[in-house]
Amino acid sequence: MGYESLKHIAKLGGLDVPRAILDIVEPIKDNDEAVRKFGIDFATEQCREILESGVTYGLHFYTLNREVASLTILKKLGLWSPEPQKLLPWKPTANVSRFHEDVRPIFWSSRPKSYVARTSEWEEFPNGRWGNSSAATFGDVSEHHLFYMRSKTSKEQRLNMWGRQLVGEEDVWKVFYNFITDTPDEESGAKVTRIPWNEEELAAETMLIASELADLNRRGVLTINSQPSANGEPSTHPELGWGNPGGYIYQKAYLEFFVSAERAMILKQIIHKYEPRVNYHIINFNGDEDFTNCDHLEPIAVTWGVFPGKEIVQPTVVDPIAFKFWKDEAYGLWEEYWGSLYPENSVSRRVIDHMVHNYYLVNLVDNSFPEPSILWTVCNEMLEVEDSMKKQKRLKQARKNPSGDEYGRWPGKVGRKFEEREMEKASEDSDDSPPKAVAVEGQ
Amino acid sequence: MGYESLKHIAKLGGLDVPRAILDIVEPIKDNDEAVRKFGIDFATEQCREILESGVTYGLHFYTLNREVASLTILKKLGLWSPEPQKLLPWKPTANVSRFHEDVRPIFWSSRPKSYVARTSEWEEFPNGRWGNSSAATFGDVSEHHLFYMRSKTSKEQRLNMWGRQLVGEEDVWKVFYNFITDTPDEESGAKVTRIPWNEEELAAETMLIASELADLNRRGVLTINSQPSANGEPSTHPELGWGNPGGYIYQKAYLEFFVSAERAMILKQIIHKYEPRVNYHIINFNGDEDFTNCDHLEPIAVTWGVFPGKEIVQPTVVDPIAFKFWKDEAYGLWEEYWGSLYPENSVSRRVIDHMVHNYYLVNLVDNSFPEPSILWTVCNEMLEVEDSMKKQKRLKQARKNPSGDEYGRWPGKVGRKFEEREMEKASEDSDDSPPKAVAVEGQ
Repeated sequence: MGYESLKHIAKLGGLDVPRAILDIVEPIKDNDEAVRKFGIDFATEQCREILESGVTYGLHFYTLNREVASLTILKKLGLWSPEPQKLLPWKPTANVSRFHEDVRPIFWSSRPKSYVARTSEWEEFPNGRWGNSSAATFGDVSEHHLFYMRSKTSKEQRLNMWGRQLVGEEDVWKVFYNFITDTPDEESGAKVTRIPWNEEELAAETMLIASELADLNRRGVLTINSQPSANGEPSTHPELGWGNPGGYIYQKAYLEFFVSAERAMILKQIIHKYEPRVNYHIINFNGDEDFTNCDHLEPIAVTWGVFPGKEIVQPTVVDPIAFKFWKDEAYGLWEEYWGSLYPENSVSRRVIDHMVHNYYLVNLVDNSFPEPSILWTVCNEMLEVEDSMKKQKRLKQARKNPSGDEYGRWPGKVGRKFEEREMEKASEDSDDSPPKAVAVEGQ
Repeated sequence: MGYESLKHIAKLGGLDVPRAILDIVEPIKDNDEAVRKFGIDFATEQCREILESGVTYGLHFYTLNREVASLTILKKLGLWSPEPQKLLPWKPTANVSRFHEDVRPIFWSSRPKSYVARTSEWEEFPNGRWGNSSAATFGDVSEHHLFYMRSKTSKEQRLNMWGRQLVGEEDVWKVFYNFITDTPDEESGAKVTRIPWNEEELAAETMLIASELADLNRRGVLTINSQPSANGEPSTHPELGWGNPGGYIYQKAYLEFFVSAERAMILKQIIHKYEPRVNYHIINFNGDEDFTNCDHLEPIAVTWGVFPGKEIVQPTVVDPIAFKFWKDEAYGLWEEYWGSLYPENSVSRRVIDHMVHNYYLVNLVDNSFPEPSILWTVCNEMLEVEDSMKKQKRLKQARKNPSGDEYGRWPGKVGRKFEEREMEKASEDSDDSPPKAVAVEGQ
C-alpha cells in the first residue's frame, strides 16, 4: 500500500502511526514501491518477533483484498508452502465417511469408481496401513453393475477401437499393443484410447515404462496394470510425486497381465530363481488354479512415502484377498465390455471366450526397489523358455516324421487364423508333454 | 553316507535300491566322498522335481542325526536362509501377550525393562505402526519403582564412575564425555561403563557417531539417546541391520540431550531456519516450558524397514505424548540414581539438583535421512550463538567499566568452581538481557 492509502486507512481506523515509522516513511513517501517494501520488511520483523516470543503460535492477517503483501510476508517467514500437487497417489473421494481412508489395493488403480462402489458399505476404511483384510468384504460386482459402470464409450466406438472382427488371439494382442503405444489401427485408423480395465487414460507414470510394456503386449503378455519402481524420489516429482513437499517417494515395480495358461505354467516354474526378490500371484478364471509365493493374508506395500514429522504413509498395497475379488471383476470385464460387442457363436465372440478361459491373471512385485526392475527379465525368460520348448517339440516331430518340412510347419505368429491355431494346438496336445524341467534348467 | 551304510540302511528298511542308482554308485563305492556327493546331488534333483510338480509345498527330511547332508540340499535348493540376527531393532520380550508388539517409542531404547514394566497393563500393543497414542497410559514410575529398576551397580561403583565430589556442571559434563569415549577418570582411574539413562552398554550403532557425540558432551550438550541416519542399508548390516535378510533399513538421525535453559532457548530461536527438515521437542523439569514444531498427537517414524512381501515395518517412533511420560522418568533418574549418592545439602547434591532444575530435555529428528545428519550443525550453531552473545555482553560490560580487565574476567570454563559460576551468574542476571534477536540474526 502506498503512502496516501496508509494515511487514509490510519485516519479511517483512528490509528496513530508511531513517529518511528513516519520518520522512515515520510522521506520516501513519493516512491510507492519503496513504501511497500518497507511495509513488508517491517511487518515480517514484527511477525518474527511475535512468533519467537513463544506467547502465541498464530498470526491473523487482514489482507483487505490485497493478498500479495501477506503472501510475501509468509514466504519471508518460511511459513508458506505451496499446495501439494496431489495428496495421495490416487484421488481421494469427497465422501466424508472416507475422510481417513489412505490405503487402497493397487488392482483398482485404473478403476477407482468401481473400487469406491464396491467398498461403499464399509464402516471403516484402512488408515495408515492396510493390515490384514481377511475380514474385508467387497460388494458384489453383478453383470448389471459392470454394465452400469461402463464409461460412456459407445458400442460403435468400442468396435472401432477393439476390432469389428477378431480372428485370433493375436488380434487381441494388437489392441493392447496399440493402446500402450497410441498407434492407430492399420485398417480403421482408430486409436485405442482405452481398454476395458481402464476407466481413465494411462497414468503419467506408465509412460516411464511404455516401451517395455509395448514389447510385452506385442508378444501376448497383456498388461492391464503396472507401475515403475521409485527409490526416494522427491514428493514433488512430476509423475511419481504426491503428498507434501519435503517427502521421499518409493515404489516397488508392479506388473499385472493376462497370459496364456502355458506361459503361466512356465512362469511358475522359472520364478523360484527370483525368490525372494519377486512375489507373484497366478490365478485362472474360476480360481481352481491359484498359485502364490506370498503370505495368504499379509499385503505387500508397493507405494509408500516418508515425510517430515509423520509415520510412513503406505497408500497402495498388493493384497492377496482383495486380488481374488478383483480377479472376478477383471475376467468379467472381458465379457461384459468386449465379448458382448459380438453376436453369440461368432468367431470374434469365441476369441474373447478363449481369452477368458485360457488366459491366466498374473501379478508380479519386484521387492528390490533400488535396482532396475527385474520383472522384464522374468517375463522375457518366460517367453524364451516357451520358444525353446516349442523348438524342441518340433525337432522331435521332425525326427518322427523326417519327410515333414520343419520350417514350413512354423509360420509367423501374428496373422495366423484362430482356427489354424486351434487345430495346431489340438495336434500338439496329443504329443508327449515336453520335458519341462530340462527346458527350464537349460536357461 | 558311504556305500556300506547305504546297503545297511536299505537292508534294515527292506528297501530295493533302484538299479539305475546302483549302476552309478557301484563303480565309485570305495570313494565315500564321491558317494556322498552323488547322494546329495541326486536328492537335490529329486527335491527340485517334487517342488516344481506343484503337487506339494513341503519336504520332510529324516536326518538320522546327520544334518549336514540335509542342510547342503536345502542350500542347493535356495531354501536355506540363515536366522536374522535380530527380529527388530529392539529385543522383543518372551511374554505371550506382547507377541504382536512391533512398535515402541525411541525414548526407552536404552531402558527396555522400564518400558516393559510401564506398559505391562496394556491389553493391546501397537502392531505395524504406532498410530495415535493419545489414549495410551504409561504406568506410574514412582521413586520406589525407579529404585527397584536400578541395575546391580552398587553405590560404591557409581561413586567411582560418576564422581565422589562434584563442584560444578563441568564435572557432570565430564562423566558424559568419559562414558561416550570410554575414557578413565583422571583421578580415580575408573571407567564410566554406564550413566543413569542406560540399562545396558552403548548400542553398536552409537559407535558410528561416537566422535560427534563426544564433542557435544565435552561442551555440555549431555546426550542420553541417539541414532545415526540410515538410507536403505541391507537388513544384514552388522550395526544397523534387523529383520529377515533381503530387506532395506532406514533411520532418521535422532538426538536427545539435556542442555542448559539458556542454550535451549537459543536452540528454539535458531531452529526455525531448519524447518521442516528438523523436528524438535524442548521441555523442562516440571513441563511448564514445553515447545515443539511437531503435531501434538502424531508420531514420527524414525526407524523403518522394507522387506519382501510385507507392508513397511516401522518399529521405532518419536511420539509426542510418550515423550512427556518419558520426561518424568528421565528427570527422575538424575535424582534417584545420581543425586541420591551424596548427602543432602552437599555441594555435589546441589550440582545434580541444579542440573534437574536448570537443564532442559531436548529431542531432535532430522527428516532428511538420505543426507548427512544436520543435527550436529544445529547443535554447533546453538553453541556458537551462545558464545557470541557472551562476547557481546562482555564487550558491553567492558564499555560500561573501562578499567575492568576484560580478558581476566573470562577464565576457561572447565575447572571453575560451582560457587564461582553461581556468583558470576547472579551478577550476569542483574544485567540488561542481551539483544537476543540481533545476536541470532548475526549468525
